Amino acid sequence: MIAVGERINGMFKDVKRAIKKRDKAVLQDLAQRQTTEGAKYLDVNTGVSVPAEEQPEVMKWMVQSIREVCDTPLALDSQKIPVLKAGLEVVTGDVMINSCRCDDNVLDEFMPLAVEHNASLVVLTMTEAGPLNDVDSRIEACANICAKAMEHGLDLPNIFIDPVIYPVNVAQQQPGYIMEVLRQLQDMADPPPRSIVGLSNISQGTQERHLINRIMLVMLIAAGLDAAIIDVLDTDIMDAAITAELLLNQQIYSDSFLKAGRM
Amino acid sequence: MIAVGERINGMFKDVKRAIKKRDKAVLQDLAQRQTTEGAKYLDVNTGVSVPAEEQPEVMKWMVQSIREVCDTPLALDSQKIPVLKAGLEVVTGDVMINSCRCDDNVLDEFMPLAVEHNASLVVLTMTEAGPLNDVDSRIEACANICAKAMEHGLDLPNIFIDPVIYPVNVAQQQPGYIMEVLRQLQDMADPPPRSIVGLSNISQGTQERHLINRIMLVMLIAAGLDAAIIDVLDTDIMDAAITAELLLNQQIYSDSFLKAGRM
Repeated sequence: MIAVGERINGMFKDVKRAIKKRDKAVLQDLAQRQTTEGAKYLDVNTGVSVPAEEQPEVMKWMVQSIREVCDTPLALDSQKIPVLKAGLEVVTGDVMINSCRCDDNVLDEFMPLAVEHNASLVVLTMTEAGPLNDVDSRIEACANICAKAMEHGLDLPNIFIDPVIYPVNVAQQQPGYIMEVLRQLQDMADPPPRSIVGLSNISQGTQERHLINRIMLVMLIAAGLDAAIIDVLDTDIMDAAITAELLLNQQIYSDSFLKAGRM
Repeated sequence: MIAVGERINGMFKDVKRAIKKRDKAVLQDLAQRQTTEGAKYLDVNTGVSVPAEEQPEVMKWMVQSIREVCDTPLALDSQKIPVLKAGLEVVTGDVMINSCRCDDNVLDEFMPLAVEHNASLVVLTMTEAGPLNDVDSRIEACANICAKAMEHGLDLPNIFIDPVIYPVNVAQQQPGYIMEVLRQLQDMADPPPRSIVGLSNISQGTQERHLINRIMLVMLIAAGLDAAIIDVLDTDIMDAAITAELLLNQQIYSDSFLKAGRM
């Protein structure tokens, strides 16, 4: 599973403060620590407290600050094209665009951008009307996303579909739906599109957030999940993910498998 | 998932000592604590340090000692008919016989015993020649176990099939096989036989036993596992199992779901 480190995001207080003061050391420290702990991509999000007109410049500054200390691939996290473009202009290495909705007009805007910059694209099973909420409507959307990708010349493994997780305390049938979508997605094409989740929504409003996140991640990995945006600095969740991969024979056993799984 | 508490077993030093001194308080304390922590059955095993000829009498004493303090159903754990019979004579309430091999001649001996005592029966996918080790041979054995059960008049939900877990450090493809067997087992009949595992074998010889046990259990629950013989006094593994059931919509969410899941 590709771990996307979630911490360089203006919704976290330390990052918000760092953006305000243009204190790049905070971002650089987070970039290096997340890389050490096994992040294969680093999410980069300006957060919404930055005024919209400043977000492109802030994104650029964030990307450049991170690139001064490490070359871990980045996931540029915004739903605004100008913000993404600003990041794409200066980023180096593999890059992920995170994320867009699955309406045709949105795909027609984001997919050419991904092609132009040779980027992967995260597509949510969510339209202007809101997130899709059963298995069939999500799978139908996935099929349309695949068709659109082929139309735009984007290889399916460069598409990461996010089936959009709901909090378990308000929609208990949803985790089962997500697992079923992940299973069906693998048979959708050859090679199929990949899957990703923003994990932490599963535990919104609950009192056992870390535990619920961790167990959900293990079950999603068993159902075929390819990537997850998570807190890689949470040792327990990374240990759980790596152990799940070990048990699925995706990691070779050694007494130091937890360390090897972070490399 | 039915948690079968593993601790009343002569292989544990405290129980071994208690058996030697016929100190029933130790067993009674373990019976009560395991029940409080969510055990739906208590495994009862004399251990092999008791001479074979004494095992029937020891089993009887263990069952009677436990029954003085609680009525949690028991899983009488021995592969020897005289030991099982001694326990079955004095046990009250639901009871499980744990376990027998799947050779025809063994099933023909154990199944009538289960029928006579209205007991559930754990059957290992293991013959005199050793444990079966791929998916197909296990499934073939399961089909034969089901046929034998019907022949002997044993309802399939009273059969718990144990697909026999190997240590992950010596056979990394095995956990995937076990998950596949669990999935296929559910379509074998209507109602199907149930499944059970002796979990801890998965982590034999590894340096992360609790973590590996816990993650394996979550993945098996996602694949449809019905019961597991585990250390219910290990808070983390019980929390993981209960959270897995929550996410599969088998437990209702409340802020105290971890407590509710142990009731």
